[in-house]
Amino acid sequence: MEKQALLYEGKAKKIYSTDDQEIVWVEYKDSATAFNGEKKATIAGKGRLNNEITSLLFEKLTKAGVENHFIKRLSETEQLVKRVSIIPLEVVVRNVAAGSFSKRTGMPEGQQLHKPIVEFYYKNDDLGDPLLITDHILELRIATTEQIEVLKQKALKVNEVLLNYFNDKNIRLVDLKLEFGITENKELVLADEISPDTCRLWDKDTNEKFDKDVFRRDIGDLNTAYEEILKRLGGSACTK
Amino acid sequence: MEKQALLYEGKAKKIYSTDDQEIVWVEYKDSATAFNGEKKATIAGKGRLNNEITSLLFEKLTKAGVENHFIKRLSETEQLVKRVSIIPLEVVVRNVAAGSFSKRTGMPEGQQLHKPIVEFYYKNDDLGDPLLITDHILELRIATTEQIEVLKQKALKVNEVLLNYFNDKNIRLVDLKLEFGITENKELVLADEISPDTCRLWDKDTNEKFDKDVFRRDIGDLNTAYEEILKRLGGSACTK
Repeated sequence: MEKQALLYEGKAKKIYSTDDQEIVWVEYKDSATAFNGEKKATIAGKGRLNNEITSLLFEKLTKAGVENHFIKRLSETEQLVKRVSIIPLEVVVRNVAAGSFSKRTGMPEGQQLHKPIVEFYYKNDDLGDPLLITDHILELRIATTEQIEVLKQKALKVNEVLLNYFNDKNIRLVDLKLEFGITENKELVLADEISPDTCRLWDKDTNEKFDKDVFRRDIGDLNTAYEEILKRLGGSACTK
Repeated sequence: MEKQALLYEGKAKKIYSTDDQEIVWVEYKDSATAFNGEKKATIAGKGRLNNEITSLLFEKLTKAGVENHFIKRLSETEQLVKRVSIIPLEVVVRNVAAGSFSKRTGMPEGQQLHKPIVEFYYKNDDLGDPLLITDHILELRIATTEQIEVLKQKALKVNEVLLNYFNDKNIRLVDLKLEFGITENKELVLADEISPDTCRLWDKDTNEKFDKDVFRRDIGDLNTAYEEILKRLGGSACTK
């Protein structure tokens, strides 16, 4: 497999084409961003942590039967995934009130929800990634009624698998943001990354935060937090 | 019927108790507010216009079989309505993209929607009246699944009746905000007001705005715009 042209550079990753039309090469960057890119930093080692954590979690999901884009980890900061056309929705599953959910509903951060809630946000930086209801998604022709239902069911399945997995590691999966894509074979699969950048992960006993809120809220060292997650998941120790 | 104690004073209305436990006395104020109360003005005559327009529209809805709180208009600025416990949701029906819908979705203002869209906002000034999805409403115990469906169907019915009614008056009903309440007899009925404060109303030919956007955006005289609506609805001429 050969890395070829840069196809896309996002806030946290670079995507390259390969000699296989159906496969792309992902490189995780050492950049941290929050608040729609308003807060930025370069944090050496972050790319490795997110690449390793994402790889572990996608391997877990594959074993649990969740169809996804992940093929294999290549190096500390690189992985191969199936080429997909990303559906421009951030599919958020929440188990516990936190962040924008608490701001929106007035429910205090940390309050357990009666059941997991799935939200769809429009993946659109210019619009500030707004919350959408089903009828907005349909009107904007982003997805069909059937696709929305499939996204919701797949997101709940991912949440169920990871909630239990993290629980075994003494971590509370507060919420997580997922993205889905359509493969060249027209399959709808889980894509993007799953990492402390995209989940809220709290210590089950102390509620200590091991996720991007550490960076967003300046309440600790990002690498220390993410390293703790990697360690609890049984990932490879830091080699740097 | 006798006006008694002030029960509640909102941004646009005062509500008084009466000697009948099931009936309240509403007085429309001459105040205009926008952006969650950040922009304010006193506009002499506005209370009369909204009281008269609301009365005409509720009479129209009653004739069309829409159960509502309206009993009768008492004076230029006063009306009697059934006492209800307001469900803290702003039920918005949109026929054409405008305002926060355009900001959220990126659809240009004035674009016709494929079908009317119902949105629910949390009636909560402290939280800035945020958009809610069904699962938020359920989690917050604001309404049940059945009530949400009833609200949606009732809102679409109100929209259908008023869309046709305004159309006959050469007015485009762009969107409207409704509130519902539960009567002492446990009936779920349409409540609050329906006026240029709570609807977007554009001239069908010129798209001239005859609603609160005139005040929000400083693009004209509020009384002139609201008076035009009252005139087209065949309401009583200004006596002041």
